[in-house]
Amino acid sequence: MDKQNCGVKFQVTGRSSETAARLGVLTTPHAVVETPVFMPVGTQATVKAVSQEELRDLGFDIILGNTYHLYLRPGHELTKRAGGLHGFMNWDRALLTDSGGFQVFSLRDLRHVGDDGVIFKSYIDGSEHSFTPERVMEIQGALGSDIAMAFDECPPHPSTYEQTREATQRTHDWAERCKASVTPGQALFGIVQGGSYRDLREWSAEVISSLDLPGNAIGGVSVGEPKPVMHDVVGWTAQLLPDEKPRYLMGVGTPLDIIDFVIQGIDMFDCVLPTRLGRNGSLYTTYGRMNIKNARYAEDFSALDPECDCWACRNYSRAYVRHLYKSDEILAARLATYHNLYFYQRVIRGVRAAISSDSLAAYRRDFLSKFSADGDA
Amino acid sequence: MDKQNCGVKFQVTGRSSETAARLGVLTTPHAVVETPVFMPVGTQATVKAVSQEELRDLGFDIILGNTYHLYLRPGHELTKRAGGLHGFMNWDRALLTDSGGFQVFSLRDLRHVGDDGVIFKSYIDGSEHSFTPERVMEIQGALGSDIAMAFDECPPHPSTYEQTREATQRTHDWAERCKASVTPGQALFGIVQGGSYRDLREWSAEVISSLDLPGNAIGGVSVGEPKPVMHDVVGWTAQLLPDEKPRYLMGVGTPLDIIDFVIQGIDMFDCVLPTRLGRNGSLYTTYGRMNIKNARYAEDFSALDPECDCWACRNYSRAYVRHLYKSDEILAARLATYHNLYFYQRVIRGVRAAISSDSLAAYRRDFLSKFSADGDA
Repeated sequence: MDKQNCGVKFQVTGRSSETAARLGVLTTPHAVVETPVFMPVGTQATVKAVSQEELRDLGFDIILGNTYHLYLRPGHELTKRAGGLHGFMNWDRALLTDSGGFQVFSLRDLRHVGDDGVIFKSYIDGSEHSFTPERVMEIQGALGSDIAMAFDECPPHPSTYEQTREATQRTHDWAERCKASVTPGQALFGIVQGGSYRDLREWSAEVISSLDLPGNAIGGVSVGEPKPVMHDVVGWTAQLLPDEKPRYLMGVGTPLDIIDFVIQGIDMFDCVLPTRLGRNGSLYTTYGRMNIKNARYAEDFSALDPECDCWACRNYSRAYVRHLYKSDEILAARLATYHNLYFYQRVIRGVRAAISSDSLAAYRRDFLSKFSADGDA
Repeated sequence: MDKQNCGVKFQVTGRSSETAARLGVLTTPHAVVETPVFMPVGTQATVKAVSQEELRDLGFDIILGNTYHLYLRPGHELTKRAGGLHGFMNWDRALLTDSGGFQVFSLRDLRHVGDDGVIFKSYIDGSEHSFTPERVMEIQGALGSDIAMAFDECPPHPSTYEQTREATQRTHDWAERCKASVTPGQALFGIVQGGSYRDLREWSAEVISSLDLPGNAIGGVSVGEPKPVMHDVVGWTAQLLPDEKPRYLMGVGTPLDIIDFVIQGIDMFDCVLPTRLGRNGSLYTTYGRMNIKNARYAEDFSALDPECDCWACRNYSRAYVRHLYKSDEILAARLATYHNLYFYQRVIRGVRAAISSDSLAAYRRDFLSKFSADGDA
């Protein structure tokens, strides 16, 4: 793959003097994306509970689609005939697709793992399917995402050193095969594995970096390991990834995680937290996370977050949103999801502004001075 | 009640020469409403799957709230402290609340019916509650709707003549008591009962009309009776209701029902059909109702309704919406509900324009020439 022709390029446009954080511009065929960036997860060609118009209103320039889910339903070939995932879901900005690796390896219906690939059963109808690096590249090519991810083996936590070493070796072999079969015009990002073993992480960072792909990701984190281990893994790995290319931390994380990993030099994030928590009635506020179902909000006619000016906070009260949850109304999930995504955007924009003014450490302190572990307290 | 002080007035502004249809303007404290009008149902202080902003975008000037549901959750007193239902749900246009009569009489947990009122058990927690005409007026007063409905007894279909006569007598007695206890500033509409018995319907229309309330409704229809019976009932009743006051047909109906009953002189309608069918994947189109889950739409990349220019039709394909349904995604219910409500607005606006140009019979023929009983055919 000639990375000059993949349509994706990255430029670092600013740096924090006190941390490894940087500002960047990620240019893709469908959008120019400012980094650090948070990508909402659109598993099944929709970010749950919000519309594509709302995602644009929220200012998201890039979202994520799940190759595993889209392959099973509606199918990558149907999606291709619809004009790719962009055409199918009517999303005109950038798309990143994951490789399905995380999903097939976290399934109970995994049938066989070999050096060639993986055989698994569909959770929808039990049918048997095979993912190889070449197949996953073909699927992502059909989906037509701006950025495709390499097919990787993501070992569970905990795994033994030997298990992890084997999975990491396989991930490296597969990354080479993905590079050889990526669809022209699509950018391939490599994924570093290595579990919680420092030498395996360092080895993987070196091998994946040497492939000279247009971006590099850290995978295999946020898979059940303690938070200090996750911090260690990112700490060992991030600085070994090329400075001139975007660094993507997959599946992470909370707002504080995002601040902390930007500080370690990460540029891209995705996570289901804001959408999943929103659907469950957990709302991010300036003062911490709030369980809106709590009886204390029954007659609280104030805004969800008094310091937020999003659509939900400008128009609807805590008491009303609580009532909607208690009544199983769809509008509850809509308002909470919109609000939580807006909160993530506020944090990301705050982080960017703080890097720009070289005051990221102060931003973090200020954030934590208000944001309590128990927002209901 | 001095109906001059209730804040609601009605003026007939145009008539069809060939039918009993008329154009009108219903002035309420919160909105000036053009009639004929369709009111979406906001059972639990939300029209399921759509936001209040979307209802405004769709051009709805009046929606309905269910007293029975709102009394049980979140409670009328809490709602009153939130600034009434308008304040609680942030709806600045007109609101009509029903009386709860239909709900308590269709419940299995009805405990006792007497001349004073009804005792019933909450479907939420099994607690026992009592509705009397005075209590229902107090609750609707607390909800603060522009238009309150009289507490009525809605007998099931079929009911014997004697059962129906008794329920109709009780409805008349209760309407008087409602009139004596309605909250100042709120408009009370009476409800005609009488089942499928012509003499009872005529008697009820006469009694309810004699109360000289600011509007009159026909209740006890669309409760399981055959469609020809419903047409008979409206035919016997509508013309007996005062010409200078709005006539509201409760709980009706399909788009064709609306056209047909406007022709009989009805001005106001409410129905859960567009929202409920939408959530179930049934979409109204110019060519009939379409079950979007049908496999035939799997690769149909055209708009839901090729003659519709709503948000859903402008942006999303049949194949995409079908995928969302198959995947249980919230956006499916959102798009379908929005589209179906837009379809109802198109019909109502078409009806108004046809009355205005005195071509309602031609409008009905034109509608039926395209709209098939089986839209999937």
